[in-house]
Amino acid sequence: MAKPNLWFTELQSENMSLGLRIEKTIHSEETEFQTMEVYETGQYGRLLVLDGCVMTTDKDEFVYHEMLSHVPMHTHPNPKNVLVVGGGDGGIIREVIKHPSVERAVLAEIDGAVVETSKKYFPHIAQGLSDSRVDVQIVDGIKYVEEHKNEFDVILIDSTDPIGPAVGLFSKTFYDSVSEALKEDGIMAAQTESPFANQDLIRRVNEDISKTFPITKLYLAHIPTYPTGMWSFTMGSKVHRPQDVKEVRVKDTKYYNLGIHHAALALPNFVKELVNE
Amino acid sequence: MAKPNLWFTELQSENMSLGLRIEKTIHSEETEFQTMEVYETGQYGRLLVLDGCVMTTDKDEFVYHEMLSHVPMHTHPNPKNVLVVGGGDGGIIREVIKHPSVERAVLAEIDGAVVETSKKYFPHIAQGLSDSRVDVQIVDGIKYVEEHKNEFDVILIDSTDPIGPAVGLFSKTFYDSVSEALKEDGIMAAQTESPFANQDLIRRVNEDISKTFPITKLYLAHIPTYPTGMWSFTMGSKVHRPQDVKEVRVKDTKYYNLGIHHAALALPNFVKELVNE
Repeated sequence: MAKPNLWFTELQSENMSLGLRIEKTIHSEETEFQTMEVYETGQYGRLLVLDGCVMTTDKDEFVYHEMLSHVPMHTHPNPKNVLVVGGGDGGIIREVIKHPSVERAVLAEIDGAVVETSKKYFPHIAQGLSDSRVDVQIVDGIKYVEEHKNEFDVILIDSTDPIGPAVGLFSKTFYDSVSEALKEDGIMAAQTESPFANQDLIRRVNEDISKTFPITKLYLAHIPTYPTGMWSFTMGSKVHRPQDVKEVRVKDTKYYNLGIHHAALALPNFVKELVNE
Repeated sequence: MAKPNLWFTELQSENMSLGLRIEKTIHSEETEFQTMEVYETGQYGRLLVLDGCVMTTDKDEFVYHEMLSHVPMHTHPNPKNVLVVGGGDGGIIREVIKHPSVERAVLAEIDGAVVETSKKYFPHIAQGLSDSRVDVQIVDGIKYVEEHKNEFDVILIDSTDPIGPAVGLFSKTFYDSVSEALKEDGIMAAQTESPFANQDLIRRVNEDISKTFPITKLYLAHIPTYPTGMWSFTMGSKVHRPQDVKEVRVKDTKYYNLGIHHAALALPNFVKELVNE
């Protein structure tokens, strides 16, 4: 029997698209904040789509979730209190609580429907959300950060693209507020799009974070379903340097290891130029 | 005025596609060996297509060409004689002759039409082909390699995908023949597809090269227009280890540098598993 000829197509820019063959539509919903869809794909297993953009897939979610979390988490010598802004699917939380030092992990997600959908259709991604150390708050992450001072060791910003509800998460004002919510040796990290496709954004975010944090470092990972497949993260740190990490504290990673930690920090020349490194 | 709504779509697998908006069709030809097209894209500048597959684009060609060449070229302490099998666009040759030690670089390309088209439509890629040290041979690379023994310091295999004319370039027999064409401390490297999409191929090629070369090493680079964006290369070396490289001998690279040389050798856990590293 021929496969259904249904394709999900993400217009990644005006001039570029990713197509994924869809075997089945699992879920479709207008939430309070965005359009949310879940599909079964032929290539990458289940796919979560928000406002037309690929958020995560079964087969490559591990890269994004491991790399946004473990690089900053290992840079901190003893992360106990961690805040994840966004990240309603639970993937970042799952990785954060692999760290034995973690006593409390707060998820501040604006859209409760994402959390519910992930629990139902992506249980292996959402699995950490029921851990006793995890506190799921359905709140505006920007407000949550503003209302907490000197409280967290690590803050991870797992946002959608810098359009729609996530715009405020890419602003200097927000990074200042994140800095105040962190303890005196705290570390933040945010997803910051592709060095091939989003050069202006990366340049600006790097400048903004540099103004607030003494140590700023861009790092990279391979994420097939994100535009260009080359994805960047930007870390801001008050004291600790990612270059100083000497051992891995977590098990059961599919991407991250000590070699990858340091390899991710090494930048191609054209990316170094973007961040004046 | 609205842009023309013409898209080049590469079916990268049965279940996945890359779409690039086309501003203009520049050239289209049935060569003796394959279908060849050149387009002007909105995203990546000019695009060279062979048998429906993206070969190279203006905007990301530098990654592939620098990484297939400079990692093995730097691993050799003094590469004088270099052979490129395939690579008719000239991009690998351009990088090879950046090495001051190179006295002779042979290009063995089966399809002369690719060389001519690249000279005409991709002059910045083909520019090295007119260098006095370069010898362009329009021949079957497999035969050329068989007929030359103990002659080259480095052999680079810049092939299309392992279907059609390039199948023989992914065989144990060919790697044995490459080993014989290399001097006693020679090094080979080949493009070996994506660890996300071509796991069986990578596993097999790694096994085959390991049987012939004492030192075998997979390494990685970010190439947006190739399937999944995560691309692998496999190096086979008789004596020299890529881990021992301590300095960069070339200038004017946009991707490669000493940090990237070593970062490219660090593999994510799921890739280590593929190659038993």
